[in-house]
Order: sequence, then C-alpha cells, then structure tokens
Amino acid sequence: MSDTIATPAHAAAAGQDGTIVLGDNQYGKAEVRVVKVDRDKPRHCITDLSVTSQLRGDFTVAHTQGDNSPVVATDTQKNTIFAFAKDGIGSPELFAMRLAEHFTSSFDWVTGGRWEVKEYTWEHIPTSLANNASDGEHNHAFVKAGTETRTAVVQRDGDEVFVVAGLEDLSVLKSTGSEFHGFPRDRYTTLVETDDRILATSVTARWRYTTTDIDFNAAYDDVRRVMLETFADVHSLALQQTLYQMGKRVLETHPEIGEIKFSMPNLHHFLVDFTPFGLENPNEVFYAADRPYGLIEAEVKRSDVTPEPRAWATVTGFC
Amino acid sequence: MSDTIATPAHAAAAGQDGTIVLGDNQYGKAEVRVVKVDRDKPRHCITDLSVTSQLRGDFTVAHTQGDNSPVVATDTQKNTIFAFAKDGIGSPELFAMRLAEHFTSSFDWVTGGRWEVKEYTWEHIPTSLANNASDGEHNHAFVKAGTETRTAVVQRDGDEVFVVAGLEDLSVLKSTGSEFHGFPRDRYTTLVETDDRILATSVTARWRYTTTDIDFNAAYDDVRRVMLETFADVHSLALQQTLYQMGKRVLETHPEIGEIKFSMPNLHHFLVDFTPFGLENPNEVFYAADRPYGLIEAEVKRSDVTPEPRAWATVTGFC
Amino acid sequence: MSDTIATPAHAAAAGQDGTIVLGDNQYGKAEVRVVKVDRDKPRHCITDLSVTSQLRGDFTVAHTQGDNSPVVATDTQKNTIFAFAKDGIGSPELFAMRLAEHFTSSFDWVTGGRWEVKEYTWEHIPTSLANNASDGEHNHAFVKAGTETRTAVVQRDGDEVFVVAGLEDLSVLKSTGSEFHGFPRDRYTTLVETDDRILATSVTARWRYTTTDIDFNAAYDDVRRVMLETFADVHSLALQQTLYQMGKRVLETHPEIGEIKFSMPNLHHFLVDFTPFGLENPNEVFYAADRPYGLIEAEVKRSDVTPEPRAWATVTGFC
Amino acid sequence: MSDTIATPAHAAAAGQDGTIVLGDNQYGKAEVRVVKVDRDKPRHCITDLSVTSQLRGDFTVAHTQGDNSPVVATDTQKNTIFAFAKDGIGSPELFAMRLAEHFTSSFDWVTGGRWEVKEYTWEHIPTSLANNASDGEHNHAFVKAGTETRTAVVQRDGDEVFVVAGLEDLSVLKSTGSEFHGFPRDRYTTLVETDDRILATSVTARWRYTTTDIDFNAAYDDVRRVMLETFADVHSLALQQTLYQMGKRVLETHPEIGEIKFSMPNLHHFLVDFTPFGLENPNEVFYAADRPYGLIEAEVKRSDVTPEPRAWATVTGFC
Repeated sequence: MSDTIATPAHAAAAGQDGTIVLGDNQYGKAEVRVVKVDRDKPRHCITDLSVTSQLRGDFTVAHTQGDNSPVVATDTQKNTIFAFAKDGIGSPELFAMRLAEHFTSSFDWVTGGRWEVKEYTWEHIPTSLANNASDGEHNHAFVKAGTETRTAVVQRDGDEVFVVAGLEDLSVLKSTGSEFHGFPRDRYTTLVETDDRILATSVTARWRYTTTDIDFNAAYDDVRRVMLETFADVHSLALQQTLYQMGKRVLETHPEIGEIKFSMPNLHHFLVDFTPFGLENPNEVFYAADRPYGLIEAEVKRSDVTPEPRAWATVTGFC
Repeated sequence: MSDTIATPAHAAAAGQDGTIVLGDNQYGKAEVRVVKVDRDKPRHCITDLSVTSQLRGDFTVAHTQGDNSPVVATDTQKNTIFAFAKDGIGSPELFAMRLAEHFTSSFDWVTGGRWEVKEYTWEHIPTSLANNASDGEHNHAFVKAGTETRTAVVQRDGDEVFVVAGLEDLSVLKSTGSEFHGFPRDRYTTLVETDDRILATSVTARWRYTTTDIDFNAAYDDVRRVMLETFADVHSLALQQTLYQMGKRVLETHPEIGEIKFSMPNLHHFLVDFTPFGLENPNEVFYAADRPYGLIEAEVKRSDVTPEPRAWATVTGFC
Repeated sequence: MSDTIATPAHAAAAGQDGTIVLGDNQYGKAEVRVVKVDRDKPRHCITDLSVTSQLRGDFTVAHTQGDNSPVVATDTQKNTIFAFAKDGIGSPELFAMRLAEHFTSSFDWVTGGRWEVKEYTWEHIPTSLANNASDGEHNHAFVKAGTETRTAVVQRDGDEVFVVAGLEDLSVLKSTGSEFHGFPRDRYTTLVETDDRILATSVTARWRYTTTDIDFNAAYDDVRRVMLETFADVHSLALQQTLYQMGKRVLETHPEIGEIKFSMPNLHHFLVDFTPFGLENPNEVFYAADRPYGLIEAEVKRSDVTPEPRAWATVTGFC
Repeated sequence: MSDTIATPAHAAAAGQDGTIVLGDNQYGKAEVRVVKVDRDKPRHCITDLSVTSQLRGDFTVAHTQGDNSPVVATDTQKNTIFAFAKDGIGSPELFAMRLAEHFTSSFDWVTGGRWEVKEYTWEHIPTSLANNASDGEHNHAFVKAGTETRTAVVQRDGDEVFVVAGLEDLSVLKSTGSEFHGFPRDRYTTLVETDDRILATSVTARWRYTTTDIDFNAAYDDVRRVMLETFADVHSLALQQTLYQMGKRVLETHPEIGEIKFSMPNLHHFLVDFTPFGLENPNEVFYAADRPYGLIEAEVKRSDVTPEPRAWATVTGFC
C-alpha cells in the first residue's frame, strides 16, 4: 500500500518559491475512553484511561488531493487501542510505547506520532462487611480517588522515543507558611506586602524520563510524593521558590528524569476586610477568587542534559 | 424600614381578575467562596465552602416599581456570610441555619429563604518529614480529597426550618456483580440481556433530617459510609435495586432521616466487540460512554413520615 | 406483560406503619443527541437536539426485587427517540408530546413521564460563492448560532399533558440605563449606591402553555424577541424590575401562556478604581467577576390562572 | 532596581556540570476579565476581553532564593491591563502589543513576554421600539453573538514582536457533500466507506502576521469569512482536504499572513441503524457522539517564509 505514496508529494513541493504548501501535521483519534478489568483473581483491578493516538508521516495527498490511501482511519486507531488493552495496560507510558511501536512498524509511511494517555485513579471501597471483601476492602467495588489525573505523552520520531510523564489538577493549599514582599513598586502597584498568606495552587507538572528501563508506576508514585512533601515543607517567599524547590527535589531523588516543567496557578485567597463591620480578621476568613489568577511556569533541569525539544513538542502550553 | 411595606402590594394584587401579578420569588448571592482557617493550634483545620443565600418575603415593590427599600442587597448577604464565618462554621447545616436565623430575625419582611452550602474536602498532606508535622501529617499543608461535594440546603418558612443534607459526584463502579435482564421487548428493543456487566454511577443523594439536634458531621460521614458499603455489597439486578437498597439501609441506620432521594446516572461501559479482530473479550475491555446515559431517580421513605414539600422545593431536579 | 404487575406492590405497601417504602420515582435515558436532516430539497434543514426521556408508573418490583419485567430499557427509550425522529421533529414541544403519547399508550403500567428537549440553533453559512448556494446562503453548510439553548419540558400524567417551554444562557448586557440605590443598610452593608452601572445577565426562562393548539416555533421566536426588546427598553432600577417587566410583556402579548419563571444571575461588572493611578474612570473600564453573583428568581403570572404544580415539577431549581 | 540583578544568577549557573538549574520560565496574571465601554456617542460600543500577561527575563533569584526584587507583581500586571484599557482597546493585537511595549520598556530585566487576549463578541439588540434605538438596534443593550472566541497571542523577545491571531470554537457542519473512503484496511479496520456523511467540526485556527502594519480587525473578519465560505464550498473527501483548502485560500487572499495552523476535531455524527426496526435511514437521522473524536491538525504555509518558532511557542497544543 505504501507504494502508492513512494514519492512524498510534500517533499517534492518544498521548494522556496512562495507556493503554498503543507507544513507539519498529525491526526488521529482523541480521548478514547477505555476501561480494562483485570479479573483473574477475586480481587479485581481496574485501569481507567483516556487515550489519544496521533500519527505523523507523509499524509500530503490526503490534504492536497483528498486521497486517503495513506490515512489509517482514526476509527482503526481507536479499535487498535481497545485491542491492545486486552493484553494489559502495564503503565500509561508502556501502553503508549506499545501503540507507538505498532503504528510505526505496521505502516511504512507512518514515521512517528504522539500518544497521550490520561489515567483516572480508583480505590477499592473500604467496607466492614465480609461479602466479597478482604482486608477491609471490597474485591470488585471501587470509588474514584483524588482530584488529579496522571498523564503520559509518548512521542516517536523514527526509532527515537520520548517519554514525558506528568500529572494535572493536584490541588494543594497551605494555610500559613507563605509570604510575599520585596517586589518592585511602580505607578500601577497597589498590592500590600504580606508575611502570612494562604498559598494555593493546582499543580500541573510534566517530567521527561531519560530512560525507558524503569518502573514507571513506582516512579510516578514517588515523584508525586516528593512534590507533595516539598510543597508542604518549603516556607514560601514566592510561589516561584516553592515551584523551584519541588522541581529540584524531584531531580535530586530521580536520576532518571532529565528535566521537569511546572504550570502552577496562584489561586488567590484574599483576606476579607472586616474593618467596616468592627471586627478583626487575623488570617481566619478568606475569599477564594476564581479569576484572574497568577500563573507561574518554569522548567527545572540538569545543566548537563541535552535538550530534547521533540519530547516537549505539543505538550500543552508550557513556556 | 419595614413600615414602608406594611401592606404588601403583592397580597393586594392577588385577586383573580386576570391581571398580571408577581408570583413566588427569591433572590440573593450565589456561590460565595469562603475559606475558614482554624489556627488556634499548630495543626490547622480548613473549611472550604461555596455558600448561596436567598431571601424570601415581600419584595413586590422592587419588582413592580423598582423600589429597593426592602431589598437587602446581595452584597450585604455576601458580607454577612463572611462575617459569620469568623465565628466558625461548625457544619454546613449549622452554618446555614445561623444565616437563616439572622436574616429572618433582622428584617421584618424577610419571612424565610433558602441557604445552600457546598463543602469541598481537604486532607492534611502525608509527610515523612518532621518539620511542622505530627503523626506523619503536615500541620498546615493540605491536598484536596475525593471527588464528591457535600451539600446542605436549609430552607426556612417563618419559624419552621427544613434541613436537607446530601452529596454530589460520588463516583463508584463495580467491575462485576451486576446483571440486567428480564426487561420487556418491543419493536424498538435491541439491547442484549447480560448477567455480568460493569455498573458505574455518580451518586447524587439528598436526605432530610427530621430533627436538628444531631451531630451533622458525624451523620454525614456515616450516611456516606453506608451508601458506599451498600453499593459494594448488593449483587445488582438493576440500578434501581441498588439505589433502593442504599436508601433502605440509610433509613434503617439513621432514624433521624425521614426520606432520602437519589439521582443516579447509569454510566454505561460497553463491552468492546472483538469478534472482527478474531479475539475474545470475556468482560475485560470496555468503552466508557459519555452520552447518552441512563438516569435513575427515586425516593426511599418511611411510610409514616409526613411529607414536607417545602423542604424539597428548589432542591434541584429530582422527580 | 402488564399482567405481572397488576397489583402494584407500591400501592400495597403504602400503609403508615413506619416501614420503609419506595416514594416517587422516574427513570430513562438522558441527553440523547439526535441530529435530523431534512434533505428533500436542495436547501437542507437540520434539527439538533438533546432529548431526555423519563418514564413514570409502577416500577416498584424493579426497586424492591430487581425484577425488570416493567422496566422499558433506557436503551429502548433511546432507540425510540431516534426512530421517531425519522418522521420529523416539528418542534421540541410536539416531538416530546409524541414520545409521551407513545410510551403511555404502549405500556399499561407507564402512566406518565417527563420528556425534555434541548435544541441548538444552526444557521446557513452566508457565502458570496454560487456553488450550492441561493440568496447568499449555502444550501447544506451551517454555522452554530447564538449562545442560548431552547428547551421544552413535557410532562404527562395519565391523559393530562403539561408543556413548559424555555430558553437558557441568553447572555445580555446594558452598558448604561441601570441604577441601584435605596436599599436598606445594616451593620454588614458596604455597597455604594449607583445611578449608572452595567447590568448583565444570562437569562434562563421557562413558560407554561395553557394550550397545545399553537405554533410552538413561532411562539418561541416571539417570546425571545419580546424578552430581548424589553431587557433593552426598560430603564432598570433593579434587576427584579427588569425581570418583572420582561415577564409582564410576554404575558401581555401571549395569551396562550399562563405563567413564566425566570432565573437570572446578576453578573457583576465592577468599576475599576483608578484613583491610585491618578486616573478617572467615568464608567468606562469594568472588571467582569465570575463568582459570587447575584441570583434573582421570580414568577410572573395571571391572577386567574389555576396553578399547575405538576407542570413545574422537576423543572430545575426555580423558587 | 535592575542593578541588584545585573549579573543574572541564571546565566552564571549555566555550566554543564550536572548541577540543577532553572530553565525557561515566565509568570504573570491570567484571565483578567476587562470590559471597556466606549460611550462618547449615544450608540455605545463594548469590548469584552480576557487578558493574560506573562513576563520573561531574569527572575532567577525569585526561584532560587525567594528574592522578589525583580518580580513585577502579577497584581501590578492586572492593574496595568485595566489602566491601559482606559485609552481604548483598538484591537486585541494592538492592545497586547501596547502591554508588551510597556513592560519591556519599564523594567530592565524584563526582556520579553507573552500577552494573550481573548475577545467575546456582542451585538446590539435588534428592536422595534424607538427608545434609545437607531436603525432598528438599541444603542446600549447587547446580546452575546456566536459561539467562537477571537484570540491573539503577542510574544516579544527583546525588540522583536510576534503576532499570532486566531479563533476558537467556531462550530460548523455540512449535512452532505462529504465522503470518506479509500483508506487502508488492516486487521483492526472495521469502518465502512461512505460517499455521503455529515461533516462537523469546531474550528480552532491560528495564523501569524508577518507585519504589524495592518487593520487587525478587518483582517480577522475577512479570514473568518474565507474560512467559513471555504468550509461550505469544498466537496470534502477528507477533513484533511477541507482543512488544507481553508488554509490555502486564507493565504491566497491574505499576503500579510505567513502561515496558518488548524486543530479540527472530527465531530462524528453516526447514521443510526434502523434495520432492527424495519425502517430505512437515507442519511436523515444521526447520533452526535461526544468522545472519542477524530483530531486533525496541520499547518499550511508559504514555502518561502522563514519559520519563526518563537511566534508559536506556547500557542497551545498544535503539532
């Protein structure tokens, strides 16, 4: 089948004569919601995923001529995701890597792509009843846990594989231990300095593994633990400082990670002014604002790691 | 001030002559996001609420003439919510009852109203570090917990108070132990019977307390526990059956509850057909659909409890 | 089939002995997204709906025993919706009434129910090209129009039919012609009076037709027109006043409507204080706040119309 | 003030010794909701924006030491946005460029940044009444129009300015004139070929201007018109083909645009199978699915335009 597109029209057109040409492109099926049940033992396990598969390669004729001969249907990509789930997920990273291997090896003109997996966490329901339960937990009944979503973005370019893990919507808050002062003041500055405020954010973090020979699930759990402990531990003079320390400690404890990026909103909690009511408000009652919010984004990295921009392409709106 | 509206225009107009008149009405401030920190001990506690206050009474002249003399500003209602938070929340139900008492006792023409409180749950961050921590938890750093929201709707009509507690978005799933068959078949019926399916729902429940002399927080925690344990325990022949058993056991264990209502989507997980790929799918791989979804709504009640429609007015879209 | 449930267990259990019994209940399929194309002429028409079907009747055995013999599967309800769409939609109200007639006449024990239809509006794409176009519009290409959603809720109880039409999310704003003053002041009042503010809201309205012998589409269009014109025309002293006038004019111009209810957030636009920057802000620059917001809810009705609480049951959270 | 950070710690640390260092970073205030009223004439105009300001430069000490001396507070950025709105918005692009100029010229260490503006469209309310109206429209009452959001992302790096305009959520649909066949088939392919289907998408597009000396508002309106007309006009053999033609015609008619990128979901409308009901469905009744959806992303460019990766950095998740 690939014979029909042996000479990529795209490459042929890529002169510099001002003609209009196709640039980078990818396509696929987004947000395939697959739930896998491991039921070989009485205690079931479930894996709940949203999988997006996007192929890259030479699809020029589809764009320029409506010729779909190279277009592996997005419906086929969806079916493949379901079929591959049958053999077990393993981890979001491994599952995405298996999909990457399949598509690039099955179709000549598919030279790479992007596979994103989001995982939602479920816990066994705690129970005091004995029926279908063991150790105080029900064997096959689950309740959704936590607010965060685990993410994995695997990109493949020829034989090279890039793995970026991450999490979204991990909501954390400190009720004290946060200051903000010493910032420059100009004509438009009205913010009052404070040595005690609420610090709240919803952590989005992404980190790149420099190897694929690790236990991705164990690594994820520990990175999450380090981020939470560091957020709690750091007496914060700026959300930037907290962010940097979180990244630094992750890199210090995880040599398999090359760099980590954060996007952290500063979810403002304003102290309510009780003066008009003749009351005091010693950091007790706050108004939680929705918008606008601060937005702090930064990368923490090892100085000797080679940048891998292909790993970070299309990984959302980080700086 | 109430002198100015001693003769409610509303009542005066309420003849049956076909004139156009004002009917029921209420107004207030919605979704006031208040966070209260209890910080008198090193181990802080936080209460994170969204509070809606709506007043009822005679506000006819505001509607018919734009005369705001009876309109307690929604901004004032917001300020009052913040000011009352200073004295502590206690529980969503008690906080709403205090607001109800305040507004109905402070303004003659405010004869009642509706106060809704949503509470978001935070947990102390577990930590292995010693700094500002005790018993393996940080004293003043928190992570948001669970997916569900606790709710309380207090309505007051004169001296009568109605308290409806509840929760929303409690996501649960059983990977087996659910059947569905025996339903009638007509021309439009194509659904295949099954004796093993995934059962998944997001529980919205509301229950009415017939007394206010209880520990609302302890009651809430236990109702939630009973619902979860029952969902897990019941071998389900229909989501209706699971719902009914959940309500029945709540009423059996909580004599202070008069009735309980549920709105439970049937979040379909369809077994993927692997036949075209030459594979088998023995209840292992499912497609989680978004829409449409089943929607099961029912009330479970004591046969000797007097209905209280005023308690349930404006409590969302239950049957 | 109805023979098997000739003696409703529900009714039998309704003694007053304190036993736990099933109360009101309904079930069905929610948010069936159906798109109907009328393509008998070159100029196509599309109707884009989200339909929810919920049945009422005697389903007690499903709840108490897991016996699904009376449970018309929600999947069957979905299929029926699609099949009925083939004959044309007509209007959301007529389509819901046809579904109501079908389910109550096809199954003895289905005595009523609730059918809700939401309609999304599309317009033909304007075009300067001649291909497949006429009068400057393309025949079969559409762009989604407006932000509001048209709604219809039809409820049936035995032979009685109740029709409530409405709309949601109609966003409107006045940049002047709105005042707010004269409200009472107490300890917690800090709001400053104003004689010129932005008034903004997102209208949710529902109105009940007292007849089914009308052109529902024409009625909807005209009610929407009257509401918009009235919002624009009224010099507002309170959002309550604007709301009331909108309802009054709808009733004055539409004798087929018995009453109308509104739920209108007061979407605050706060004048930004430019004093610290040495600037003036003569009602030019505003901050549009998300939460909290005011919430004004009221019914406007004819004094001689008999209340029909069954028409309004489960029609969202109106007062 | 910039004296204190004359030697950027960041640059100093950037050896390659494996130490952990700060990488790229930016910060600011997100989603500042500003509404500007132009009221010098009886017919008001309103501009409704969500503005995000993010600064880049040397903020290393804030991250590594919690030293906020270079941190222009996000609150100050917010105030500046409001203050600058007083002088008029002009266009999203010009407003963002003014903010860029201000921040980079006011603070030595701020060497660049990113300013994103989203604009929501309002139309004057049509009215048949004469009060405060002219030409059948009310002077100062508005209704929100359309579903799409106009966007502008301006990035500045030293003296260089990059302007990317765009739109989001432009929902379009063709009820015929779309085919899909000829795609490769493998073990996992089950999709049936079709020569008549519904084609629906929600267009997200971004295009880069190669000059700033244009009328941005007129350009936006015309690009939108060309995209709509082309979507309607192209008989589609693949969504890729439609996308490419939309981009091609935009570039052909707008020499001031260097390249354009699209992200277009294929919003599936599945023909409902009426066979089990003994009915036919000649492309009349469709089920509109939510997830999964196809996702087609591509760039269309001039072959002689120099790539500007800095213009596209952080512009959401395009390929």
